[in-house]
Parts: sequence; structure tokens; C-alpha cells
Amino acid sequence: MKKFEEKTTATERIFEGKVISVRIDEVRLPNGKSSKRELVEHPGGVAIVAVTEEGKIILVEQYRKPMDKTTIELPAGKREKGEEPIVTAQRELEEETGYTCEKLEYVHSFYTSPGFADELLFLYEAIGLQKKENPASLDEDEFVELMEVTLEEAVEMIQDGRIQDAKTIIGIQYLQIKNK
Amino acid sequence: MKKFEEKTTATERIFEGKVISVRIDEVRLPNGKSSKRELVEHPGGVAIVAVTEEGKIILVEQYRKPMDKTTIELPAGKREKGEEPIVTAQRELEEETGYTCEKLEYVHSFYTSPGFADELLFLYEAIGLQKKENPASLDEDEFVELMEVTLEEAVEMIQDGRIQDAKTIIGIQYLQIKNK
Repeated sequence: MKKFEEKTTATERIFEGKVISVRIDEVRLPNGKSSKRELVEHPGGVAIVAVTEEGKIILVEQYRKPMDKTTIELPAGKREKGEEPIVTAQRELEEETGYTCEKLEYVHSFYTSPGFADELLFLYEAIGLQKKENPASLDEDEFVELMEVTLEEAVEMIQDGRIQDAKTIIGIQYLQIKNK
Repeated sequence: MKKFEEKTTATERIFEGKVISVRIDEVRLPNGKSSKRELVEHPGGVAIVAVTEEGKIILVEQYRKPMDKTTIELPAGKREKGEEPIVTAQRELEEETGYTCEKLEYVHSFYTSPGFADELLFLYEAIGLQKKENPASLDEDEFVELMEVTLEEAVEMIQDGRIQDAKTIIGIQYLQIKNK
């Protein structure tokens, strides 16, 4: 038995989408009372810290509908069903940035919103980046623009709010700690 | 016009919950084609880096239904409607940990899952922690256990996967960088 476990007594499926699904679980709390939990199921994904030979971090600028904002993030993407995260990372690095790499080193994995969603992200560092001549291209509904910034610039972008994405802050702080 | 903006041409409301709401937006992409976006609306919240006089970081162990796991996280909580994030932080610090503080310093704010959710978290550092005699108590459906760990222990817990929560990793990395 997990500590403070909430046993599910009933489940209502609300929505089955292409990316997310939503359900409500009725649960029995540790004190015996009942409550409801609104839950989002997500396939999870990867994010990649990729530093070029010139010491620049590759970032991706893209429009994000949930916030109606253009954001600056690490290269990242969702896992296909049954796909190993490292394979997702290889694919997304090439599609989003046009780079391949010699090796992907695992850094951390983390849940992005454990209060309501099961999304788990695997963070990798790309070692030995190489520009590919004819890289695989993006999905047809993805529009992104690449940026390359120094670590100092990236840290400044966190401080002034131009970078406001959890996985990207984790990746940049990882580099700060590694380079200290 | 925001770069790569996707104009909404239709919205379907799917679910209105107590914590999250879900909608599908039909959008016009920059290339003129149409696509659909599955979107979760969330009130956002706060997380607090709280270090005791003895130099220990306060962490909260709790059960999280989305992953069916007991997790270890920074003290955190959702914003009430219209509430200033710093007020949420004061409240959640006291309710979850039994501590109050002299000052809350803003660290970063970040979106947890910008691909599908608008959840925005404000991270604060609590300065001048003081144990309260009769602290405000938790909501009746919350069950948590406190832990106090050194920074070295917290870093080890990220490395071995005992801490696997984005906001908590950001807070611990922040302390590593600050103390370097």
C-alpha cells in the first residue's frame, strides 16, 4: 500500500483526444471519506539540452495555444505509443533543430503537473552535435524558429521572463550547475 | 500579431471541473490549413523553496492520483480565484508546513506543460522561516507528510529519482546555483 493512497471506487471517462484524455476518479481518502479527482492522461515526452560546438544552446520559438503566446523552449516532443524516450529524443532533435548527435545522455525525468496530469518528461543532453544535410522535417502542423544563445544569455532570459517554461529552466539550470 | 499565431476559428467546451476545464479549439495555422488543439485550463499556483534555520529544505510527501504514486515535492498549491500569487504562497506555506516567514522572494514563474495546459506556477523563496504555534490546517482532502533534508540530500534524491517533480527540481537547482 502506497503512503496516503487513494483507492479508486469509480471512474468516469470524460474525453478521449488525440493528445490528451480526461477522466474523473472517485476516490476513498485515507480518512475514509470520498472525493473526486480530475485527471489528464498524456503520453509524456522528451526535452533535449543541445549545445553547439560554439557553446550555444539551441532553443525553439513557437506559438502555444493554451497561453496564446509565443514561447521559447528547449527542443522537445511527445512520445509515440510504445516508443523508447531516447528514440523520441533522437527524432525530435533532428526534426526541430536539423541537428543529429553522437550520444544522448540521460539527465533527469520529471512529472510536469503531478496534481492533475501524468505527463512524464525525460530530459537528455545531446553530445557531439552535427548539422544534418537533409534533416527529417516537422509535422505539418508545427511551426518553429530556432535560436542559439549563450548560457549567460539563457540565464538572463529566465530572469527577465522571456523563458518561462519549466523543462527549459531545468535544462538551463542543469548547464549552470555543470559548468560551475 | 504574435509570431506563428494560430487564430481560433471555433471552440468546443468539453468539460468544466472544479480544478481544470477542457476545450478544443479549431485553429487556422500560419500556412492557412486547419488543425485542432486540445487545451486544459488550470488556475495556476505557487511553489515555495523554504530552508529552515538549520539549513534544511522543507519537502512534502503526498499521494498523487494521476501517477498513482507517492511523490516528494516542494510545498505548493493552487491559486484561489483572483488571488495574488504571493498570498497563495503565504497560505500554502502555513497550511502545508506549519511555518510562516518574514518575506517571500519571487524567484521565477513558469508554465508547467505549455503544449496542452495554461498552468502557470510562481516560485518563491521563503526568508526568515518561523514555526507557527497554531498553524492554519490543510483542506480536508489533503494528506501530506513533511520531510526536512539538506541540499546535498535533495540533489541525491533528484539523481536517484526519488524526486521527480519539475517545480521541485527547479527549486533545488536554484539553491545549488545560489550557494555555489
